[in-house]
Amino acid sequence: MIPLHSHPSGRHFLQIPGPSNVPDRVLRAIDNVTIDHRGPEFGELGRAVLSGMKKVFKTESHVIIYPASGTGAWEAALVNALSPGDKVLMAETGHFATLWKKMAVKLGLEVEFMDGDWRHGADADKVKARLQADTEHAIKAVCVVHNETATGVTSNIPAIRKAIDAAKHPALLMVDTISSLGSIDYRHDEWGVDVTVSGSQKGLMLPPGLSFNAVSAKALAASESARLPRSYWDWKEMIAINAKGYFPYTPATNLLYGLYEALDMLFSEGLDNVFARHDRFGEATRRAVRAWGLEILCKNPAEYSSVLTAVIMPEGHSADAFRKTVLTHFNMSLGQGLSKLSDKVFRIGHLGDLNDLTLCGTLAGIEMGLDKAGVPHRKGGVQAAMDYLAGSAAAPAVKAA
Amino acid sequence: MIPLHSHPSGRHFLQIPGPSNVPDRVLRAIDNVTIDHRGPEFGELGRAVLSGMKKVFKTESHVIIYPASGTGAWEAALVNALSPGDKVLMAETGHFATLWKKMAVKLGLEVEFMDGDWRHGADADKVKARLQADTEHAIKAVCVVHNETATGVTSNIPAIRKAIDAAKHPALLMVDTISSLGSIDYRHDEWGVDVTVSGSQKGLMLPPGLSFNAVSAKALAASESARLPRSYWDWKEMIAINAKGYFPYTPATNLLYGLYEALDMLFSEGLDNVFARHDRFGEATRRAVRAWGLEILCKNPAEYSSVLTAVIMPEGHSADAFRKTVLTHFNMSLGQGLSKLSDKVFRIGHLGDLNDLTLCGTLAGIEMGLDKAGVPHRKGGVQAAMDYLAGSAAAPAVKAA
Amino acid sequence: MIPLHSHPSGRHFLQIPGPSNVPDRVLRAIDNVTIDHRGPEFGELGRAVLSGMKKVFKTESHVIIYPASGTGAWEAALVNALSPGDKVLMAETGHFATLWKKMAVKLGLEVEFMDGDWRHGADADKVKARLQADTEHAIKAVCVVHNETATGVTSNIPAIRKAIDAAKHPALLMVDTISSLGSIDYRHDEWGVDVTVSGSQKGLMLPPGLSFNAVSAKALAASESARLPRSYWDWKEMIAINAKGYFPYTPATNLLYGLYEALDMLFSEGLDNVFARHDRFGEATRRAVRAWGLEILCKNPAEYSSVLTAVIMPEGHSADAFRKTVLTHFNMSLGQGLSKLSDKVFRIGHLGDLNDLTLCGTLAGIEMGLDKAGVPHRKGGVQAAMDYLAGSAAAPAVKAA
Amino acid sequence: MIPLHSHPSGRHFLQIPGPSNVPDRVLRAIDNVTIDHRGPEFGELGRAVLSGMKKVFKTESHVIIYPASGTGAWEAALVNALSPGDKVLMAETGHFATLWKKMAVKLGLEVEFMDGDWRHGADADKVKARLQADTEHAIKAVCVVHNETATGVTSNIPAIRKAIDAAKHPALLMVDTISSLGSIDYRHDEWGVDVTVSGSQKGLMLPPGLSFNAVSAKALAASESARLPRSYWDWKEMIAINAKGYFPYTPATNLLYGLYEALDMLFSEGLDNVFARHDRFGEATRRAVRAWGLEILCKNPAEYSSVLTAVIMPEGHSADAFRKTVLTHFNMSLGQGLSKLSDKVFRIGHLGDLNDLTLCGTLAGIEMGLDKAGVPHRKGGVQAAMDYLAGSAAAPAVKAA
Repeated sequence: MIPLHSHPSGRHFLQIPGPSNVPDRVLRAIDNVTIDHRGPEFGELGRAVLSGMKKVFKTESHVIIYPASGTGAWEAALVNALSPGDKVLMAETGHFATLWKKMAVKLGLEVEFMDGDWRHGADADKVKARLQADTEHAIKAVCVVHNETATGVTSNIPAIRKAIDAAKHPALLMVDTISSLGSIDYRHDEWGVDVTVSGSQKGLMLPPGLSFNAVSAKALAASESARLPRSYWDWKEMIAINAKGYFPYTPATNLLYGLYEALDMLFSEGLDNVFARHDRFGEATRRAVRAWGLEILCKNPAEYSSVLTAVIMPEGHSADAFRKTVLTHFNMSLGQGLSKLSDKVFRIGHLGDLNDLTLCGTLAGIEMGLDKAGVPHRKGGVQAAMDYLAGSAAAPAVKAA
Repeated sequence: MIPLHSHPSGRHFLQIPGPSNVPDRVLRAIDNVTIDHRGPEFGELGRAVLSGMKKVFKTESHVIIYPASGTGAWEAALVNALSPGDKVLMAETGHFATLWKKMAVKLGLEVEFMDGDWRHGADADKVKARLQADTEHAIKAVCVVHNETATGVTSNIPAIRKAIDAAKHPALLMVDTISSLGSIDYRHDEWGVDVTVSGSQKGLMLPPGLSFNAVSAKALAASESARLPRSYWDWKEMIAINAKGYFPYTPATNLLYGLYEALDMLFSEGLDNVFARHDRFGEATRRAVRAWGLEILCKNPAEYSSVLTAVIMPEGHSADAFRKTVLTHFNMSLGQGLSKLSDKVFRIGHLGDLNDLTLCGTLAGIEMGLDKAGVPHRKGGVQAAMDYLAGSAAAPAVKAA
Repeated sequence: MIPLHSHPSGRHFLQIPGPSNVPDRVLRAIDNVTIDHRGPEFGELGRAVLSGMKKVFKTESHVIIYPASGTGAWEAALVNALSPGDKVLMAETGHFATLWKKMAVKLGLEVEFMDGDWRHGADADKVKARLQADTEHAIKAVCVVHNETATGVTSNIPAIRKAIDAAKHPALLMVDTISSLGSIDYRHDEWGVDVTVSGSQKGLMLPPGLSFNAVSAKALAASESARLPRSYWDWKEMIAINAKGYFPYTPATNLLYGLYEALDMLFSEGLDNVFARHDRFGEATRRAVRAWGLEILCKNPAEYSSVLTAVIMPEGHSADAFRKTVLTHFNMSLGQGLSKLSDKVFRIGHLGDLNDLTLCGTLAGIEMGLDKAGVPHRKGGVQAAMDYLAGSAAAPAVKAA
Repeated sequence: MIPLHSHPSGRHFLQIPGPSNVPDRVLRAIDNVTIDHRGPEFGELGRAVLSGMKKVFKTESHVIIYPASGTGAWEAALVNALSPGDKVLMAETGHFATLWKKMAVKLGLEVEFMDGDWRHGADADKVKARLQADTEHAIKAVCVVHNETATGVTSNIPAIRKAIDAAKHPALLMVDTISSLGSIDYRHDEWGVDVTVSGSQKGLMLPPGLSFNAVSAKALAASESARLPRSYWDWKEMIAINAKGYFPYTPATNLLYGLYEALDMLFSEGLDNVFARHDRFGEATRRAVRAWGLEILCKNPAEYSSVLTAVIMPEGHSADAFRKTVLTHFNMSLGQGLSKLSDKVFRIGHLGDLNDLTLCGTLAGIEMGLDKAGVPHRKGGVQAAMDYLAGSAAAPAVKAA
């Protein structure tokens, strides 16, 4: 029997920073019967989701939807806009920025990796300085992760844009929003991003399996002469056929059903309300962490993530042992520390289809788990979160009947 | 559009004392395609659920499954075993006991209603005294609600049985377990109950629409001469056809799918573990209530319900206004006070497919709601619950992989 | 493991005359999470389905929805409007009319059963004559089955109404539309019916578990003085509480979700289109039966059912053996002959969520089954049906994109 | 509102050659809640589906599962095993072979395309001759489509293998089984294939979104020195992490649930029974086509596809107009003619979760559509299919109860 049903009584708390808890509406949508992806109904669906995704990215330009994980959309960004040996400037914000950098190297790009301590976002001043030094414009792209899923640290994208502009540098700006899109405000056009990369399983509240590129006119123009081999990821054919709502190869129809539904949910709530809700969850979580006397990995409050909070384990205690205790006793999955943070931090996902009470349950699971696992801490984290949440629960959460 | 989707972000907390939160496995089961209720597959299903329900009732005798709400199973108990004008002794434990009594009157029975204060269970001594006084055995049945859903008070069924036996009285013992079965230990055979009434939407974790009678040999014999008119509820034809797993009229096939799945879940967890889990939830909830400085409706600790806790609102505060605040701000439904308790109590359901973290979220919603609604209380309820839950979370909650 | 999944490859053909094939939209609807049946969302749902059912019954009066099978709605009709010993005139149209009559007897009514040959509908002339003879108006109700599910014969309800009126008789007219509502035109108000009985699992395309009474003002008035004991089925309390969309006891919430969706489907297609579709299916099926050289049970073409066709097996051949062959080899369930028709007829359901191609598949299964089972017949049944269907497929079956 | 629900009454017939009709069990599986892809439960799932896929490919070597369409698996095969400028020999069997070839060119390979008439499979003799001529072993891979979805023509893979062996040529053999795997017998190891490409939405009965490579030791060795840039598609990292059931980047968890369920269905039926069932469907369909007097595109009976049948429209008639008639009047999607066959053929999918009666309904829709659209044909196609199906329906289709 499929191991899906091994969970004990009650709903599992999936509080990793993605995949996030998929709402029932989306799950129900993806189990509709698969239709002919070349038939008239599909065209309607295709046009609807492509148009909806533009609103989410806040772009008037093109959005590409891939039947692929977010990792695929990283690759798509690179292979469409760059040529073998091109130099790219990437910011080391954490594990995922490092993975993207490794990918770029594997694909034959020359990467300059601006080092970081995994506790801060990308440094716009350093970007500016580096680009100013690149008087020959060897650097073809600057790549930044908007919300580093491994650390709970965001990078200031408008500041990066300004840095590039200040350096009068023609490099493309590529931004990974895999774990921020649909949870934290993001503006592809206004912020002058050339390629935005995203995925389905975080703020978009879908299962994994879809990923996205939003593409500026400048990036599209660059792709005309870019010479990295590409076929599956090729923007051009996609854009041509997308105009009527269709795709050049078989799309992941059932996940697109889910996307349709998720977009309807996001727009019904209102994107600004969605962002404000995530901000509240982030703040409540950080208040709990501080009450416990634990340290938040992110050092700069201006860079706190509203999507997840990474917490540093007290010296001498294993984050993974703690996470296992929480899973075993309290039926909750927390995010692990990745690569150099392995066993040193745990990550609390507070994103997607989430509300105040589920967040309180989440924090209660952590507080009880700290107790159970013998991790030194003070009580009062949940109380601190409740104090904040009750005080800030201004808007009615349920439609009037 | 159907108003099902109006809930805001995140899962609704359905913390009324039933219908309880229906687990995904059960929801998925009931959406399987309807099959021929006279075909071979159906027979297998029918036999499986009838046999499983016997284990839940802890009876070797007959279990009847009605396509009906619990109210229908009340009616079934009365019309099968009794005749017009028969005298029945019923215990006033609360709103639902009162409804059952009203039904008995409507059906033409003569009811003697032993009054109660809605804060205690049925009084076995009074039952004994009354039956001893009934030397002519005019009383044909004693009817008791095992777990009064309106008050969170249980009645001691073995004590009632002893009372009847001590009085050497032949009256049938009828027990309503609509909100206890599958959550609190119950033993139809061992406790000498003649008719047990139950429903699907509480401890059995199903949507409403199925209800049950467990029937002793003595009750079955009584039904032979009972003269209340009956057809839909008639045990006899049911039992005859049930032998092969079929039903005399069209059964609620898809809800039976859900029952099959729910039984599998209950037996996988183990009934004793299910009961222990509910006991923990009850205790944790009461500790929270006490920490808030609020009063539990149930006066006798021996009669506390592990299914729900009714909480008395401080004088001058409206329970319904409070519940509305909780629904509006925190997306949680709490149970209302019924009839004479209307607006005076709120009820916390802590039953069914529930775990520690969801309970903590529930209690957090109440604590924040009390704050938000300006109800005088002390903080610390969630903390008290967490202290207890963390301390008693001995058993691993997740299967080892 | 639950025996739901034992079917071999491909979708099972459930071509019994109900439960009919439940459409995916309805199945998806019933697996939404159960909500508080006393909360504001539920009220919206309740009002919507009650109002929609009035349109289906074509009544401005009251519709009652029971969490029960159709058999329960039969009982409800009788116990609400009649008193012990009341005389009722019922027409023997087949197995289900006979079951309803048995129920009436069990409930303490005095039934006069107008005999029939199970191949014709109720005889309006005989009804008229009988009522004219009843000068003292001892007969309190005339009960007729609109579409006898056991025979595929309809009764002319307007003609029965005229017969009662012609006899100037005050008897109530009660009509069972369990297998006709939502498939064959029916008009509660216009036809002057007092109580219409129906169920969820046929033309309404739901799983079994809901049933209905439509109640005229006259029937409601009669219920005021009717003395059969009743509680679960009591119209009065239902009607009072239904006004706001709620129910006096826990309703079958998830099936109501399905009802909401099914009503949306019926109204989207348009009731007249639904009826015309069923008429085409009936005609196509009968042409196939005639081409096979088999005999249709229904003798009077004016009384053919558009819901099902009962076919007489050639002498010396077992209908049940044939049905088993069809089930075993072709994964299709056909309806069995009931009581005196047992093993002598098989019944083809052509109702509900059905289209031309599924009907062709159904008829192909029968034609191949006749071959396989060695039942004497001519080929050409499917061909005859296709000739008719292709010739009458005027309306576009798919919305323009 | 999402356009999924615009279909009229009854189940849509999705008789394109993929995506095939997804069975309810699979749809229900994919709507289970998403779990932590790094947690212990996921590992179990991952190991189960990887191991199951090996049985389906009939390989002891490695199977890779991509969150991608089949087109992605084509790309994966090429970029893992080949280097820029490598020469590959591809056989022009139809539209999809041509697309694969175009992809190879885009990726920087030098393709030699053995031309074909789109009515025959790959010519093993020509392969042999070409390889024998390639004495310097410039050709690095031979690429053949096992079942050309655009034409309904299969290629004899063992014969291709023999041709390569006879030429003593070291080229890798790459085979596309996107539309054959799980429907037509296929043996990766026994037939000496180096890379087999496949997808989820045909014989595996899943929605689109997963695709596969089965990889021989020789292919794996080749990948060590292959220099086409690759990251997302890289076998190496996949294989390393797959050992424990995990994936190097977020997998399409919910589609993997469906894969688990689909594998269970395939193995329950038995792969040989699945293949035999498809063979019957192919033969029945061709008999129908011949009875209509229409021409099958595939010229060589030894190369008939059991998955789909492409039918040539009579001169002067539009295949697309005919398909539109069928969709509009009979709620069925048929496959269109692609590229040079556009509007000249229609394709009948008879694969996946399909049974005799659905196939009969499919053929009835075509026969009625030919009539409706005024396409010259003879009647009797469905009759011919039924004669064959009834005659060959030896095995019981339903488990004994």
